[in-house]
Amino acid sequence: MGRIVMKFGGTSVADLDRIRAVSKLVAAEVAAGHEIAVVVSAMSGETNRLVALVDALDADMAPSGEKSGGAVEDEYDSIVASGEQVTSGLLAIALRRRGIPARSWLGWQIPLRTDMAHSKARIAEIESSAIGPSLANGHVAVVAGFQGINDEGRISTLGRGGSDTSAVALAVALKADRCDIYTDVDGVYTTDPRIVPEARRLNRIAFEEMLELASLGAKVLQVRSVELAMNNDLPIRVLTSMAEAGQDNPGTLVCHEDQTMEERVVSGVAYSRDEAQITLLRLADEPGVVARVCKAMSDANVIVDMIVQGISRSDNTANLTFTVGERDLDTALEALEQARQEIGFEALKHDRDVTKVSVVGIGMRSHTGVAQTMFEALAAKGINIEVIATSEIKISVLIDSEYTELAVRALHSAFDLHETPAPPVTAP
Amino acid sequence: MGRIVMKFGGTSVADLDRIRAVSKLVAAEVAAGHEIAVVVSAMSGETNRLVALVDALDADMAPSGEKSGGAVEDEYDSIVASGEQVTSGLLAIALRRRGIPARSWLGWQIPLRTDMAHSKARIAEIESSAIGPSLANGHVAVVAGFQGINDEGRISTLGRGGSDTSAVALAVALKADRCDIYTDVDGVYTTDPRIVPEARRLNRIAFEEMLELASLGAKVLQVRSVELAMNNDLPIRVLTSMAEAGQDNPGTLVCHEDQTMEERVVSGVAYSRDEAQITLLRLADEPGVVARVCKAMSDANVIVDMIVQGISRSDNTANLTFTVGERDLDTALEALEQARQEIGFEALKHDRDVTKVSVVGIGMRSHTGVAQTMFEALAAKGINIEVIATSEIKISVLIDSEYTELAVRALHSAFDLHETPAPPVTAP
Repeated sequence: MGRIVMKFGGTSVADLDRIRAVSKLVAAEVAAGHEIAVVVSAMSGETNRLVALVDALDADMAPSGEKSGGAVEDEYDSIVASGEQVTSGLLAIALRRRGIPARSWLGWQIPLRTDMAHSKARIAEIESSAIGPSLANGHVAVVAGFQGINDEGRISTLGRGGSDTSAVALAVALKADRCDIYTDVDGVYTTDPRIVPEARRLNRIAFEEMLELASLGAKVLQVRSVELAMNNDLPIRVLTSMAEAGQDNPGTLVCHEDQTMEERVVSGVAYSRDEAQITLLRLADEPGVVARVCKAMSDANVIVDMIVQGISRSDNTANLTFTVGERDLDTALEALEQARQEIGFEALKHDRDVTKVSVVGIGMRSHTGVAQTMFEALAAKGINIEVIATSEIKISVLIDSEYTELAVRALHSAFDLHETPAPPVTAP
Repeated sequence: MGRIVMKFGGTSVADLDRIRAVSKLVAAEVAAGHEIAVVVSAMSGETNRLVALVDALDADMAPSGEKSGGAVEDEYDSIVASGEQVTSGLLAIALRRRGIPARSWLGWQIPLRTDMAHSKARIAEIESSAIGPSLANGHVAVVAGFQGINDEGRISTLGRGGSDTSAVALAVALKADRCDIYTDVDGVYTTDPRIVPEARRLNRIAFEEMLELASLGAKVLQVRSVELAMNNDLPIRVLTSMAEAGQDNPGTLVCHEDQTMEERVVSGVAYSRDEAQITLLRLADEPGVVARVCKAMSDANVIVDMIVQGISRSDNTANLTFTVGERDLDTALEALEQARQEIGFEALKHDRDVTKVSVVGIGMRSHTGVAQTMFEALAAKGINIEVIATSEIKISVLIDSEYTELAVRALHSAFDLHETPAPPVTAP
C-alpha cells in the first residue's frame, strides 16, 4: 500500500483501445490498495495535428516585422494543451466505467505553476492541497501532463516530451512512494537490443547511471526527470504499457546506488550517432584561446561536448578538436568562420560520420582497469579512437560511425553484460 | 466608436481559411475604432468528433449499475470544451499576424461562472474586471464560447448551441453597445427564402418578434440569447460571416420596438414541421380534465403547445386536441395510454403530418384584421385549419403538412412582405 504516480505517453494512449487497456493497468494498482495519480500525454498524433494547424495558419500570415502583433507562444500553448485535456477526460471516464472514482485534473486546476517561458516552461511549484486529499479519499487523479499555469493565469506547456518531468514532479509534490513511467519498452537494457540481441533488461539502475545514459541519447527517460527524481530520492520504475494487467512486468527500477544491490562495474553501453567532430588547425597556443572558442559556440547556442587539445607544435600552435550535436554543426561552422580573426586559427575541418560510444557504471568509482578493458576491446577489433572523454562513472570514445555496431558488441561482451541477470527484486 | 462583441459559429471558423477571413472582419472593426471582444465556437465538425470519442469509449464500457463509478458529464465538458480552446487560440494568432494585439480567453480565465448543471449549464455571472481593462487597452479578446467554470473549479459547457447565449451574456457584462452574431445567412428574412424567393431581409426587427420567430424554429438565433438581449436592452445584429471585410453587410438589427421605425403589421411568416397532433376522443367534460392531461405530459417531460377543446357533446364528453414536438410524440402517446384510466378518455388519435404556420408582428397589437386576412388567404387556397393559437403578436395555425409551402407563400403575399424594404438604417 502506497502512493504511486503512473505516467503514460502518447503511444500508450494512442486510441480508445489503448486508453481502455491503460484503465485496466490503473485498476490493478487500485485493487492492490494503492493511491494513484496518473499523468497522461495527448493521444499519439494529436499534438502533431495541433502544431500543424498553428504552422499552417502561420505559413501565409508570417510575421512581416511591422505587422506582427507579437509572439504567439502563449496561444500555441493554449492550443496544444487541449490534447492532454481530451486524454485526461477520456481516461477518467474509462476508469469510472470500471467502477473506480476518478476525475481529470488540468494544469491550472491543480495548479501546477510554471515560469513564464511559454512552450518550454519549467515547473515552479505544484500545489498538493487539492489533489492530495482527493487521492487520500480513494479517487484516482488523472492529470493532463505537459501543461501548467503561469503567473499571468495563462496555460503554459513544458515543451515536447515534458510529461516525464511533470510526472516525476507531481510524484515529488504528492510525496509518492514511486513514479512508474509506462512506455513502449519493458525496461532499461544493458545496451540497444537491436544491436546486441543478448542485451538484458536491468532490474535496477542507479540514478547517476540513468542520467548518463539519458544524456547519451537513451530515449527511455528524459534527463530532467531523472535529475528531479535523484534530487528528491524518488524511485522511478520504467515498464511497458503493452503488458496485460496482472502479467509479470517488473521493468527497471531507477533508484539510489545503495539500493541497486547488483555487483557490477559497468551497467550499460550507450551510443549516439548525433555527433559531429570539428577540428581547428594551428590555433595559437596561448592562454584563453579555448575560452574564445567556447564563447563563440555558446553565443551561437551550440553545446560543446567532448573537447581535446593536441600537443603544442614547434611554431607555437596546436590543433583543437571538439564535438557538437550533428544538428548544430552548420550553425557551429558558421559561427567559427565569423570569429576566425578573433579566435585565430588557420583552418577548419569537420566530420559528420562519427559516433560516441560510452560505457557507464557506478562501479567504476571503486574499480580500476575499466578504461584499459575498453581500449583493449576496441583495439582488438581494429577500431581507432578519435577522442576520449571521461567522467567519474563514464568513459566515452568518439569513433568512425562505420564501426558503431562492432564497437557496441565488443564492449557489451568485454564487460560480461550478457550474463544471467541477478534475481528480480521487488519494487518498494 | 463603441464596444462590440462579435460572435462566430462553427461554420464561420470551419477551417484556417475561414479563420483568416474572420480575422479580417475583426480587423475592420478595430480599424473603425471599436473595442472588440470575439466569441468563437469550435471548428465545424470538431465538437462532433470529440462527442464521438466519448460515445465510442462508452459504447463497450457502458455503465452496468454496480460497476459505474458515477456520471461522466463533468469529463464530457472538459473534453468538449477543448474545441473552442483551439479556435480561440488560432484566431488570436491570426489577429496578431495582422498586427492587432489579441489574446484568447477561456471560460475559466474570464471567469465565466455557471451553475453546476454539466453539459447544459446556465451562466451565473461573468467577471469583467480582467477582460474589460484589456479591451480598453486596445487588445482584442478572443473568447472561447460555450464554456464556463463552476463553483467546484471544473469546466462546464452551456450545451450545444450555447455560444449565441454566451456572446450576448458577455456583451451585457462588458456593457457593450451591440452584439454582432455572424452566421451563414445575411440577416433575418420575412420568411424562408427557399420557399418564397421574394422573401426579403429585414433591416430591423423587435426583440419580441425575434423571440417568437426563434421559438417557432427559425434557426438564426437561440431563444435564450434573444431573451437575454431583450432583458438587458442590448441590440443584436445578425449578419453573414461570408462577406468580405468592407463589403456592404448590414444584416438585421434586433432591438427594442421604438427603434424599429418600419411601419408594418406583420414582420414575418414562420413554419415548423416538427409538430404532431394528438386528439383525445370523448373525454369526460368536467373541470380538471385538461389539467390531468397536461400533468401527464409534463410528468413525461413533454411540452404541450397548441391546445383546443371541442364543443361538448350531448353525452357530456368532448374531444381535446393538442400538439407536441414530433420527436416527443411516442413518449406522449405512451404516457397517455398509461394514464388513460386516470384521465378518462375513450380513444386516441394522432397525426405526424402537420405543420404549424405563424405570422408574427408587433404591429398586431394596434391593428385589427390580421386574423381575418390570414384565414381568408388560407381559405382562398383551400387550406383547412386544424387548430388555431394566438398570442399578442402572433397567430399560429396547424395545417396538413402537404400545404406548407402553399400556405407560407399565400401569407407572405397577403401581408405584402415582398414589398421594397425600407431604406437601410445605420446600426448604433
